[in-house]
Amino acid sequence: MSKAAAKIAARIRVKPGTKPALKKINQRDVDFLGAEKDVRAAFDEDVVAIDKLQDHMFSDGTKSLLVILQGMDTSGKDGTIRGVFSKTSPLGMSVHGFKKPSELELAHDFLWRVHAECPRHGSIGIFNRSHYEDVLVGKVRKLAPKDVIEQRYEQINNFEKLLVQSDTTILKFMLHISKKEQGERLQERLDDPTKNWKFNPSDLEDRGLWDDYQAAYEVALARCSTDHAPWYVVPADRKWARNAIIAAIVRDTLENMGLKYPKMPWKPSDFKID
Amino acid sequence: MSKAAAKIAARIRVKPGTKPALKKINQRDVDFLGAEKDVRAAFDEDVVAIDKLQDHMFSDGTKSLLVILQGMDTSGKDGTIRGVFSKTSPLGMSVHGFKKPSELELAHDFLWRVHAECPRHGSIGIFNRSHYEDVLVGKVRKLAPKDVIEQRYEQINNFEKLLVQSDTTILKFMLHISKKEQGERLQERLDDPTKNWKFNPSDLEDRGLWDDYQAAYEVALARCSTDHAPWYVVPADRKWARNAIIAAIVRDTLENMGLKYPKMPWKPSDFKID
Repeated sequence: MSKAAAKIAARIRVKPGTKPALKKINQRDVDFLGAEKDVRAAFDEDVVAIDKLQDHMFSDGTKSLLVILQGMDTSGKDGTIRGVFSKTSPLGMSVHGFKKPSELELAHDFLWRVHAECPRHGSIGIFNRSHYEDVLVGKVRKLAPKDVIEQRYEQINNFEKLLVQSDTTILKFMLHISKKEQGERLQERLDDPTKNWKFNPSDLEDRGLWDDYQAAYEVALARCSTDHAPWYVVPADRKWARNAIIAAIVRDTLENMGLKYPKMPWKPSDFKID
Repeated sequence: MSKAAAKIAARIRVKPGTKPALKKINQRDVDFLGAEKDVRAAFDEDVVAIDKLQDHMFSDGTKSLLVILQGMDTSGKDGTIRGVFSKTSPLGMSVHGFKKPSELELAHDFLWRVHAECPRHGSIGIFNRSHYEDVLVGKVRKLAPKDVIEQRYEQINNFEKLLVQSDTTILKFMLHISKKEQGERLQERLDDPTKNWKFNPSDLEDRGLWDDYQAAYEVALARCSTDHAPWYVVPADRKWARNAIIAAIVRDTLENMGLKYPKMPWKPSDFKID
């Protein structure tokens, strides 16, 4: 692991078995990253490296990477995908946004629709929201009985373990923004006619439940940050810092997956092309 | 339509009701595009424009674009995706490669698995190979009875018409390479250890059936280039020209789809953010 990425990762990883105090994590303080100019330069290199690594992963064909993005409305899930994977070929990538479940999806266990979207070997899958919604909005809005919600943390851990044991590496990022920053971003969506479509009146209801959501996040992070699939809390008020942190960790993770070109059952000299 | 793109499109479009003579189309002659330097500059602008347009399409949310790529082995399907969509965010894009059908897929009609992968409104879908394999390899290798293959052209046209009538624009590109160029590219896959994984011994069998494939392509292009979903034959021996042609047509198509920001059922002044 590169020293810089390791330092960042160690700092923002939720240590398994501990409960993060989200209120104590400053969403705007990113001084630990170093000078903004240097951070941006490193980011530019990282996104190019991610493309090359993804290409290598595609040829390797035996492993996959699942990137899970969670965060309050406007926390920058879309922007992260656009930023971090801006140079990555869509070949061998998939993005899936999980919205309110359909009737068919609700007629199954909550992991059914998630399992179906997991990335195939050789590819990177990105979840824009995920099964964690079922212990976040599910809990805050009481969409399921308490004991059902309670069971889900273990179910999630077991499910993620299955994926990891099946050669999928999992990275989970909580984009941690401040309520103040969210207010500004929501206002911007109202002020800019080309952003109106991103505004959903129900976002204001969720904003009204801010503290409940933060509490639900703390429980989810505490119970589901595991050695096999850790959670990272990303200070996300500054978009450039958010993207740089995630790109550094994604790049480093890919570099440490031991990607190889597959061994072919033939020698090049076996063939002659006419 | 931009004048340059319109000229290119008109030149390489297979006019509905006509049969192209693939042998008479020079895979290497791209002088009609102009000077290479200018073509490359236009391409660089086009890929950036495609990203912006795709973003707009995502917010519009009512229309989709389906790009179908077909061509002999090594014709550059992967490279086209990597090149033309190199700057496009994976958000609102999907790529699907159609391989040899699975048992489950074979237990359905040949369009079943294809329909399932069609892009949702607001997104661009790319097919790396497609239902046309069923009238190409299907025909050459006699994977289905003659009369079944015969039916497929109309089935394809009807299927594509359904998509178009449901607000999906379809672009179909045949990447037309010469047998000589294919020979060089296959040899390169043997010579470069990091490309060995791309080489499949069965590619040589298909190479041996070159003329049969070209004939099957001619029939497919003749019968399935329609007003609603035209085929384009792209001279593909030179990668930079291939990418530039496709990028120009994709950009132009997106620009002419009449994308709009959705009308919201509220006024921004309805809301106050605390």
